[in-house]
Amino acid sequence: MGIRFDYNNVLDAAVGREHGLTLKQLEGLSKQAARLHETYIRKIRESGKIGFFDLPYDKALANRVNKLAREIRGNCDTFVVLGIGGSALGPICVHTALRHYYHNFDSAARGKDPRLFVVDNSDPELIASLLDIIDLKKTVFNVISKSGTTPETMTQFMVFFEQVASKLGKAGIAKRFVATTDESKGFLRRLADEYGLATLPIPDNVGGRFSEMTAVGLLPAAVSGVNINQLLAGAAEMDKACSNPNLMQNPAYLNAAIHYLLDTKKGKSISVMMPYSNALRDIADWYRQLWAESLGKKFDQKGNIIHAGQTPVKALGATDQHSQVQLYAEGPNDKIINFIEVENFRRKCSIPKVFKSLPELDFMTGSDMGQLLNYELAATEFALTQANRPNVRFTIDKVTPQNIGGLLYLFEVQTAFAGGLYGIDAFDQPGVEEGKKATNALMGRGTKADKEKSRQVAQYLKGKKIKPVQC
Amino acid sequence: MGIRFDYNNVLDAAVGREHGLTLKQLEGLSKQAARLHETYIRKIRESGKIGFFDLPYDKALANRVNKLAREIRGNCDTFVVLGIGGSALGPICVHTALRHYYHNFDSAARGKDPRLFVVDNSDPELIASLLDIIDLKKTVFNVISKSGTTPETMTQFMVFFEQVASKLGKAGIAKRFVATTDESKGFLRRLADEYGLATLPIPDNVGGRFSEMTAVGLLPAAVSGVNINQLLAGAAEMDKACSNPNLMQNPAYLNAAIHYLLDTKKGKSISVMMPYSNALRDIADWYRQLWAESLGKKFDQKGNIIHAGQTPVKALGATDQHSQVQLYAEGPNDKIINFIEVENFRRKCSIPKVFKSLPELDFMTGSDMGQLLNYELAATEFALTQANRPNVRFTIDKVTPQNIGGLLYLFEVQTAFAGGLYGIDAFDQPGVEEGKKATNALMGRGTKADKEKSRQVAQYLKGKKIKPVQC
Repeated sequence: MGIRFDYNNVLDAAVGREHGLTLKQLEGLSKQAARLHETYIRKIRESGKIGFFDLPYDKALANRVNKLAREIRGNCDTFVVLGIGGSALGPICVHTALRHYYHNFDSAARGKDPRLFVVDNSDPELIASLLDIIDLKKTVFNVISKSGTTPETMTQFMVFFEQVASKLGKAGIAKRFVATTDESKGFLRRLADEYGLATLPIPDNVGGRFSEMTAVGLLPAAVSGVNINQLLAGAAEMDKACSNPNLMQNPAYLNAAIHYLLDTKKGKSISVMMPYSNALRDIADWYRQLWAESLGKKFDQKGNIIHAGQTPVKALGATDQHSQVQLYAEGPNDKIINFIEVENFRRKCSIPKVFKSLPELDFMTGSDMGQLLNYELAATEFALTQANRPNVRFTIDKVTPQNIGGLLYLFEVQTAFAGGLYGIDAFDQPGVEEGKKATNALMGRGTKADKEKSRQVAQYLKGKKIKPVQC
Repeated sequence: MGIRFDYNNVLDAAVGREHGLTLKQLEGLSKQAARLHETYIRKIRESGKIGFFDLPYDKALANRVNKLAREIRGNCDTFVVLGIGGSALGPICVHTALRHYYHNFDSAARGKDPRLFVVDNSDPELIASLLDIIDLKKTVFNVISKSGTTPETMTQFMVFFEQVASKLGKAGIAKRFVATTDESKGFLRRLADEYGLATLPIPDNVGGRFSEMTAVGLLPAAVSGVNINQLLAGAAEMDKACSNPNLMQNPAYLNAAIHYLLDTKKGKSISVMMPYSNALRDIADWYRQLWAESLGKKFDQKGNIIHAGQTPVKALGATDQHSQVQLYAEGPNDKIINFIEVENFRRKCSIPKVFKSLPELDFMTGSDMGQLLNYELAATEFALTQANRPNVRFTIDKVTPQNIGGLLYLFEVQTAFAGGLYGIDAFDQPGVEEGKKATNALMGRGTKADKEKSRQVAQYLKGKKIKPVQC
């Protein structure tokens, strides 16, 4: 497929000894990589413990999704995802990449495809504003939650459910809501059965941030007109490259190893994802969850306290050259930068020579905007490398469903493999439990544990001795 | 005004000795702060060297902007900003905060106010897509560049100029373009004069990232219906609080000191900005430029190599609780988190009790979404504090032009003062020069220096010995 991975600029030859890796150092991980491939990656994959690896091959699911998507498309002009985290970031990034950039803004731009909104917050201004602009009779809501206990999603479901019920009656419910949830258990499953909603499954062995190629991501994509078969085909093809036990030939393992070594040996505690393409900007946001939530862990698998985890940062080229590159070039040398380059843009936009009185600007003209954008990438890569800042580059020949599927799959395998290198569990998220418990307690759930938590929060608030500065 | 700053959770009493500051440590900076106030802040302000401080008081400019905005509003349904970096991030964040959340998506939502698009990249797909959805006869373009040499902005100007000229004739140019640029010099000034464009000035002593309250930010805001007089009044009121020489009473100085001490003494190399409000999400992006570009510096003012600069990270609550908080809670303790809380949301959205078969979910119902969102903030703040992660909180009583103006002004003063603490020049950006030169060389500008730069880039590319991994 049309993706290349260039890692020259993490090597000492490019960025010097202090900040770069030797080729020997990298190759030195080959044995460990081969071992991890056998004893970790193959094991969690073949045992069925971790399910994302095999999602690209689920033709039955794709058919089921396409069928439901056709029905929904005949039944709405707007599709609203109620979901957060992994249920939101995948649908958003695929939509931004593969639909018209102003799809939601303009009916001519989107043609017959419905608008797609993803409501991923419990902000009343966001939700009330959305209600202003949708016609409930022409909207389908996709509630996404594995368990049905996510407060943001379930409260949104309540709000929109009441709106639909009061305006379209009970009969409207089954027509206006579909649920993506656990096959057999949980609150959302019970509600879907009770109200006769169409449903699609979230497999038990796929966590939220790895769920883009389950129904979670596929239904919104298919409804808004993305060819999900191509998306999955691209992921399946990438699976070949990413199943290679040879570290130096496997882009996912290799970039994981690069990040791991730069983090642990060279103090690169930040991983920047910087596509030079507006269409790919939200892939950086999706990656941000994947990398942070998978690798940001207090304990390793043996129970040692390690506080692992690079901080992922999303950036956009060339835009952020005018915002972040000053820091990347001159600030602390604590980053590894992932560039993504698009070789051929889907649209042309040539730069005409119009200002005859200013020949000084002529050098900017004659080429295409895409050429300019790629020059900017090359120039920034050059400048950062000169300043000894390690960076890698993914080049994709064009933004297509295949390449997007491939790229997401690559980053998923990279993350899983990085978990192996760090010796941590990349598939749990214990660190969000404390906040969840406190939220439930503050909302008044009222179990014995909640009451204890409420007491703790009250005590914490009392501990705030210093009055805020008022301005 | 309605803004409070709570810094309890950076103190050792809240997050422990290892990661927290003692009150004594903080107060210990008071003398230095008072000295910096006199010898640095007052000096650069009163000498006129740095101009942003006094922008809130420029009534003449506000009148001029309002007058031009009225003319433009009578003349278009769409206003397009051609600008990047400081010319884009301010207009975007004010628009997101103070207009309907779906302003650009829906004509009923925006009423008589024009759509506002900010084209801040040289991506051909972005630009061609925008051309699909605008009517040139009903669009006004605002080209923003102090010098007229910014390649992204000037090439966009060329593209849209040719479109307008070919479709509306030369006469259309003066009606469809306005320029915000230097009062008397530079390429854009010359073009504006040549084609008879309406213009507004960018003062010499205000850099891009501090320019939101010049015409750069004020015109787009006024055109899209924001009350800029209130915005400026809020900034002026905040100026009072931020002119207080007493560190412990000046929120801007205090938060600068907190960031400085946590960075240099406690290893907090990352500054997260995390509003719990979709309306404020782009303020985090604006802050990201301000903090990164101002403080990310190789040299201090004495010429010592220091590689200063925290990495700013934008986040959004509660959304990113499902993406980043796992890392913030359990990963390396290398962050200071800035929460922004909204006390009273502009819209209500109450959570109804609709699922009678599931009393287990009743505890989520009865309150408003805004209450839930603020519970989530309190819970996350609590959980992170329990995990000894330092954090501060800004609370604004409501999202109003006054409070937005005040908040932006506060962060600007905070940044300027932080420059003083680090002993660096917060107002230049030397680190982007190398990339700019390389871009110009690649585009074929062809001066002697360009040719040398081209040779360097070619040599750099030849140095890439390792073939990319193909997948």
